[in-house]
Amino acid sequence: MTGDDGRLRPAASLESVAVVGTGLIGTSVALALTALGVPVFLSDADPEQARVAASLGAGHLGPPPRPCEVAVLAVPPAHIAVAYEQAKRSRLALTFTDVASVKSNVLLEVQSHLAQDVEDFVGGHPMAGRERSGPRAARADLFLGRPWVLTPSAATSPRTLAAVRGLVRACGAVPVEMPARAHDQAVALVSHAPQVLASLMAARLAGADEPVLRLSGQGVRDVTRLAASDPQLWRDILTTNADAVAAVLREVRADLDTVLDALDPAGGSSDRALVALLEQGNRGRRRIPGKHGSAPALYAFLPVVVTDRPRELARLLADAADSGVNVEDVRIEHAQGQPLGLVELAVLPDAAPQLSQELVRRGWSVQEPDPLQPD
Amino acid sequence: MTGDDGRLRPAASLESVAVVGTGLIGTSVALALTALGVPVFLSDADPEQARVAASLGAGHLGPPPRPCEVAVLAVPPAHIAVAYEQAKRSRLALTFTDVASVKSNVLLEVQSHLAQDVEDFVGGHPMAGRERSGPRAARADLFLGRPWVLTPSAATSPRTLAAVRGLVRACGAVPVEMPARAHDQAVALVSHAPQVLASLMAARLAGADEPVLRLSGQGVRDVTRLAASDPQLWRDILTTNADAVAAVLREVRADLDTVLDALDPAGGSSDRALVALLEQGNRGRRRIPGKHGSAPALYAFLPVVVTDRPRELARLLADAADSGVNVEDVRIEHAQGQPLGLVELAVLPDAAPQLSQELVRRGWSVQEPDPLQPD
Repeated sequence: MTGDDGRLRPAASLESVAVVGTGLIGTSVALALTALGVPVFLSDADPEQARVAASLGAGHLGPPPRPCEVAVLAVPPAHIAVAYEQAKRSRLALTFTDVASVKSNVLLEVQSHLAQDVEDFVGGHPMAGRERSGPRAARADLFLGRPWVLTPSAATSPRTLAAVRGLVRACGAVPVEMPARAHDQAVALVSHAPQVLASLMAARLAGADEPVLRLSGQGVRDVTRLAASDPQLWRDILTTNADAVAAVLREVRADLDTVLDALDPAGGSSDRALVALLEQGNRGRRRIPGKHGSAPALYAFLPVVVTDRPRELARLLADAADSGVNVEDVRIEHAQGQPLGLVELAVLPDAAPQLSQELVRRGWSVQEPDPLQPD
Repeated sequence: MTGDDGRLRPAASLESVAVVGTGLIGTSVALALTALGVPVFLSDADPEQARVAASLGAGHLGPPPRPCEVAVLAVPPAHIAVAYEQAKRSRLALTFTDVASVKSNVLLEVQSHLAQDVEDFVGGHPMAGRERSGPRAARADLFLGRPWVLTPSAATSPRTLAAVRGLVRACGAVPVEMPARAHDQAVALVSHAPQVLASLMAARLAGADEPVLRLSGQGVRDVTRLAASDPQLWRDILTTNADAVAAVLREVRADLDTVLDALDPAGGSSDRALVALLEQGNRGRRRIPGKHGSAPALYAFLPVVVTDRPRELARLLADAADSGVNVEDVRIEHAQGQPLGLVELAVLPDAAPQLSQELVRRGWSVQEPDPLQPD
């Protein structure tokens, strides 16, 4: 379980790794590999940052005695090409990868900077967040179970890909390979466009009256959660991936026009266009994979009334566990003006009746499991 | 806790209540009041529905011996005016309320149907969902802690408002008063527009490739959760509240155009417009009230690594409870391709270090609490 992450990973066959840039991602990579016994060599444009990382047990300071198997260029996107050239020239490593969250432009810059094929480089994007927090926020388990996209180009050698793939696995992440442009389109769809829609919705709330906002339920909370993100960071991400993000948003805009048309009594489109869009939303939602990349299980959500006292939630989860049913997810509905709340336990539909019975037997007030309904 | 909801409510001073329409909402009202000892008289256009409700202990069948204090018209929106007229003519009750989720049109129809002032009627909207599931899905605790909007008109008498307010409180809900039009604009903003944005985003996923969708994280899951809702039901809600919903969506479209312009190298607007929109989203998000209608607490989310085994979640929550820190919310991050997940425990920021220490002491792998960051 905890504290023994290493046991869950394949034995690392990496000989040694150089980490250039000891921010949160670089230091987390270093900590994960050091924990496996892989020699790691740290450097940073700011030597103090590298010293902090080393003091946290992330690895050794200074250049390696001989070229490492892989160098992780965990520097800001604008510095990757230069860092790559310097690392290559100083024979820091035999293969190279970066960790930027948009990939096409990195590859272009590396290629144009070197003015040659780059068989020893493959772009990477660990989808594990927290880019800005520095070495002290680093964790050896930051990448556990997360996708880590690798974007080989036509020039990337099999040896490069194999070495970096090994590094990804050693960090506990799941390597996913696709071309750089496909990656950028993918994150535009599943990460960047959702961020924009969350911000668009939340922006409408900024000027709303207090009594209006008191009617907020879990729905608007979920839709707008991402809107709490850092504006500067997202400005950079969105403008760097502008084409791919705009392509998704233009389609959203076309659908939005259809909805507005359907809501206009003088509009040309019928209710049917509105229903079609809502149904397409049903289909899209169902396609998001569930836990562990499997097809989404259609969980039953079992609503249980709890008081808002310490220990009630733990007691509920313990009672649920004692019933022998695995709780797949937990959702807490916030009650207004009362010391009560609804906790929804997500379980496989077949298991819901058993769990319900068992909880009622133990004195819980369990409501009927129900598909998602509007307020 | 459970089973003793009545103790948490003010003693009911209601003499008797008629429930017209014994679907989920009507029957839930009846169950809540019957549990308090209030005589409830049930009727339904389908006598079998009313019999089911009575058999569940929701109240008595048939007309009351003398007019009830309140009649709850829990019938579909299109039938409210007629149900009101019939109930009034048969002296079913002294005051009347309905439970439809859009309110201006109901008031207009009631007024025009009666062709007179309606001082004995006040519109209502219990924000507790599950409208379609019938009497068997009804629960006495359906409204506990939920807002229940009342929309008095200029004609509504103080006596009517007081009686219906008493009914709402007796059901355990929190009465919130506002004009019908203000209610419709409020739910357009905090419920109907979020539904549309969730569907718009999810619709983009319907045709996406499998490897793209495997990169989905918690962000896109949250933004699209509402998109699983029933299309026919939402067609009705959105078209009935078309003006108010369209007003919000037109503002969303204007902001979306600003974003598209900022992402277009040939566009007129600068990055600054994009940052301004993201910042406005920050502000809007912060304005959503937290638990119990209070200002949103800025919780720290403490990420803990757990295996995906039964009992691990219960054990974690029990350990958290033993540490004396109240866990305000739980979020389960789904790990891909590994039998591991991240559970985020929301706690008050001051309590985070104590909880973290305590959990680490018990062998849990706790990551640094961190504000929301992009992947």
